[in-house]
Amino acid sequence: MSKTYRVGILGATGAVGVEILALLQERMFPVAELRLFSSERSAGKHLPFGDELLTVQTVSTDALSGLDILFASAGSSVSRQWLPHAVAAGAVTIDNSSAYRMDPAVPLVVPEVNASAVLSHQGIIANPNCTTILLCVAIAPLHRVVPIRRIVVATYQSASGAGARAMAEVQSQAQSILAGEPPATEVLPYPLAFNLFPHNSPMDVSGYCEEELKMVRETRKIMEEPALLLTATCVRVPVLRAHSEAVNLEFTAPCSPERARELLHQAPGVMVVEDFERNYFPMPLDATGKDAVLVGRIRRDLSHDHGLELWLCGDQIRKGAALNAVQIAELLIARGLL
Amino acid sequence: MSKTYRVGILGATGAVGVEILALLQERMFPVAELRLFSSERSAGKHLPFGDELLTVQTVSTDALSGLDILFASAGSSVSRQWLPHAVAAGAVTIDNSSAYRMDPAVPLVVPEVNASAVLSHQGIIANPNCTTILLCVAIAPLHRVVPIRRIVVATYQSASGAGARAMAEVQSQAQSILAGEPPATEVLPYPLAFNLFPHNSPMDVSGYCEEELKMVRETRKIMEEPALLLTATCVRVPVLRAHSEAVNLEFTAPCSPERARELLHQAPGVMVVEDFERNYFPMPLDATGKDAVLVGRIRRDLSHDHGLELWLCGDQIRKGAALNAVQIAELLIARGLL
Repeated sequence: MSKTYRVGILGATGAVGVEILALLQERMFPVAELRLFSSERSAGKHLPFGDELLTVQTVSTDALSGLDILFASAGSSVSRQWLPHAVAAGAVTIDNSSAYRMDPAVPLVVPEVNASAVLSHQGIIANPNCTTILLCVAIAPLHRVVPIRRIVVATYQSASGAGARAMAEVQSQAQSILAGEPPATEVLPYPLAFNLFPHNSPMDVSGYCEEELKMVRETRKIMEEPALLLTATCVRVPVLRAHSEAVNLEFTAPCSPERARELLHQAPGVMVVEDFERNYFPMPLDATGKDAVLVGRIRRDLSHDHGLELWLCGDQIRKGAALNAVQIAELLIARGLL
Repeated sequence: MSKTYRVGILGATGAVGVEILALLQERMFPVAELRLFSSERSAGKHLPFGDELLTVQTVSTDALSGLDILFASAGSSVSRQWLPHAVAAGAVTIDNSSAYRMDPAVPLVVPEVNASAVLSHQGIIANPNCTTILLCVAIAPLHRVVPIRRIVVATYQSASGAGARAMAEVQSQAQSILAGEPPATEVLPYPLAFNLFPHNSPMDVSGYCEEELKMVRETRKIMEEPALLLTATCVRVPVLRAHSEAVNLEFTAPCSPERARELLHQAPGVMVVEDFERNYFPMPLDATGKDAVLVGRIRRDLSHDHGLELWLCGDQIRKGAALNAVQIAELLIARGLL
């Protein structure tokens, strides 16, 4: 009989936590025991897992004891508080927050891109920022063959990136606007329905917001290219749960659209979606619920000899968060690290 | 008494036509007589102008006779059919369609950018593509001082660019989705509510769509820089009527954000909207109904020594179409050309 594992999910009732739970079932992750943790507000809730109905509990040192693996998706401060306890108790933790991502001792992993990075883990493995994961899955297969020098990216990020409450808010805002009433803003800083705004993460003195700097720094770390040039404009759009990105790539040598398309067709985690005749390309609605990053509109950049333009959509909660985390756990098992 | 003019609007019942009508009143354009033209479907409708109620009529050679100025906003084929007649009958025509924009004999004008181009007109003056107008208003003031070498732009274009029926469709799609019903698509090729898709204008063999190539070609013509490097990704988003653009500029020499901000503060038609502390920047909802192009998030490009990033929003129907056309007419009067 193959080995099974005692698994915990910290932040089990959030958008990403719920998705991790679903993916563990869907992918038949070898679960021996499952413990669900949440804040006090959600503790006591019941969530189904297979034939069982699990009770969500608050986290404690005792409750973490004996776990083999802990998925954390409850924000940076919760991760900083509890992950060291889980590691001390013997678990490997996969952290969806940004708490440890840039820590040199913590691998930042997209399994399709830098799987080997897990080998050096010391108990914590960081799951990258959602837009960064989607970008890396799409560009790493190209970069391996023709090195990329510079990336200019503009994002179209769905409400799901701001959590389940933001997803509900954009819908209720749309309802209000259609009824001729002013839209309420509680979770989001400005109305998002029929509107959009630059990503509202904290501003850096550089004029970039944190979300954009995450893309810059995390992409460099995942691609193991500390000198990679990257600039990003991150924008929140009134879409529910998949992110899109307009990506301009400058290579160190020419990379034809045909070559790029061929490389992407073979790339794990990528689905090329291009029908130039029907003008049908990746859309958030089509990416929703899918594992793959959809890539299309691959074309030679009119403004640069070594340039290529492409367009991608990916499910932010799935590959952008929960699926990537579960894939990291599967990778640990495959490499005999768990 | 100052001179007044006999004015016609071809496509008077469309989104842009209605806006031209409103702007003529709002800006107290010296109208002696106003004739409204539409397709047979809308002929017979009544539209208010000041105290009058004007009847919309179908266009004919007779009906165009005696006009001083004709605004055309009924599509390329209608412009090609009727503008030569209007010009032959003595009118100056301002064409919002793409029919004549790249004709070397036709000035393509954004009054804040290349006003003098009107001097060479031969009866037809072209009003540029909406996204191009907004871009040029924002970048020309910088380019005059520090020449721009290359532009990488990603757009976030509202439903209004596809006309009044597309605006209604995105609202009814939202209504359906919120009610748990499938969204209907009649005007737009795919659901746009809670979704987005690459611009559905016809695809060129280059892999760029027509909207993107318009930005490339028209920007070069308006800026009078045939060698300007530009690449664009145009995307339709579920916003009703203002367009946004993420703009990456590469200058021939460094241009600091401070210098750019100072130049844009003084630039006609531009409003700098930047509150880094509150994370408040241009949004389509704020740009709607405004004459100015809102510009913000001006920052030094982390990936290029001579680079600058900025973000803009502008009302596509207003400055992106109707206002620019009316400003061209005002310019003709100011220059004694009408």
